[in-house]
Amino acid sequence: MTTVHGYSPSGNCHKLRLLLAQLGTPYRWIEVDSSRGETRTPEYLAKNPNGKVPMLELDDGRILVESNAILHYLAEGTGFLPDDPWQRAQALSWMFFEQYSHEPFVAVARFICGWTPLESPRRAGLPRLRERGHEAFAVMEGHLSTHPWFTGTGYGIADIALFAYSDVAHQGGFELSPYPALRGWLARVRETPGFVAMPDPSPGNAALIAAST
Amino acid sequence: MTTVHGYSPSGNCHKLRLLLAQLGTPYRWIEVDSSRGETRTPEYLAKNPNGKVPMLELDDGRILVESNAILHYLAEGTGFLPDDPWQRAQALSWMFFEQYSHEPFVAVARFICGWTPLESPRRAGLPRLRERGHEAFAVMEGHLSTHPWFTGTGYGIADIALFAYSDVAHQGGFELSPYPALRGWLARVRETPGFVAMPDPSPGNAALIAAST
Repeated sequence: MTTVHGYSPSGNCHKLRLLLAQLGTPYRWIEVDSSRGETRTPEYLAKNPNGKVPMLELDDGRILVESNAILHYLAEGTGFLPDDPWQRAQALSWMFFEQYSHEPFVAVARFICGWTPLESPRRAGLPRLRERGHEAFAVMEGHLSTHPWFTGTGYGIADIALFAYSDVAHQGGFELSPYPALRGWLARVRETPGFVAMPDPSPGNAALIAAST
Repeated sequence: MTTVHGYSPSGNCHKLRLLLAQLGTPYRWIEVDSSRGETRTPEYLAKNPNGKVPMLELDDGRILVESNAILHYLAEGTGFLPDDPWQRAQALSWMFFEQYSHEPFVAVARFICGWTPLESPRRAGLPRLRERGHEAFAVMEGHLSTHPWFTGTGYGIADIALFAYSDVAHQGGFELSPYPALRGWLARVRETPGFVAMPDPSPGNAALIAAST
């Protein structure tokens, strides 16, 4: 059975949980707490030298890393990845946008709020991260004001990739009221068949988030 | 004829020049100096609301952005993208690695050295960028010490994506002597048929690089 090595509160990891649930694919989940160094052990680094989650491990031991590459691999031949070459290209384009122009700001702001001490010097970077995160939300809002989904006519892996951290952006101090089209899209994603939400942060992380936002 | 909107000294843009040259595909190049705000004009933002280069424009006006998504689109059906689904997945995995764990450090350090004033406060970030860039080079070295290319048995778009900024890393103050396998791979890429090198930085940018590294 396919194994996912992942940290449950990570949006990058949740992308795989959501797609696998919606595909109805059985899988095994091995919890790896990247916030406590569990991706930096010799055993883990032997499988993924870049020391990150998520990681997909096949029964024969083959390894695939990078959340959006895993989404693309799992979605091939399913309705979650368009057949049309141009729409397939747009799916990848949005997924690279997510990793370069969205996640490093939206996800990192959330991580700093919930997973670093209140006195962490990294908190000085929050205003700049939020500014850049809002730039990403504005780009998404522009697209979503004329399109129901990120590619083609239906929900797919570009939506999953962008949903993961957008739906928990408030945990990083982002206020999404300026983006009605984005909020409508988040609601549509939550209504897709087989949808599963990201687990809530632990009480300790939730307390840090509450004190930060 | 396909049009590339690009800034010549940008590695992300050079990826497209290199692949198109090696495919033998005719194209038109429109120079857009992102370092002087030319991606932030209303006309440019109407085509790419994220305000970045490169941008591919088809004859019918359709737009594709994100360098690695464009590489993937152009390489589909050619020898630059493997047929095997697992190797295709590995190509995307390395391309997401490039955009998340390599470019934000290796390319940004080079940009700061050559495209910001010597008194820029951003220069305080160079040691940390170089530390993270070396982590990426170490991951690449590990792979290349047992594989000639990033995917399968031949040169392809994952190599192009990772080559672009690795080959000019010295302009960001990176010393690659600790990575013999990586240096061997850079040399092999330079010997591929139809290879074209990135244009040299302008004299002004070159002077800043010389004063920074």
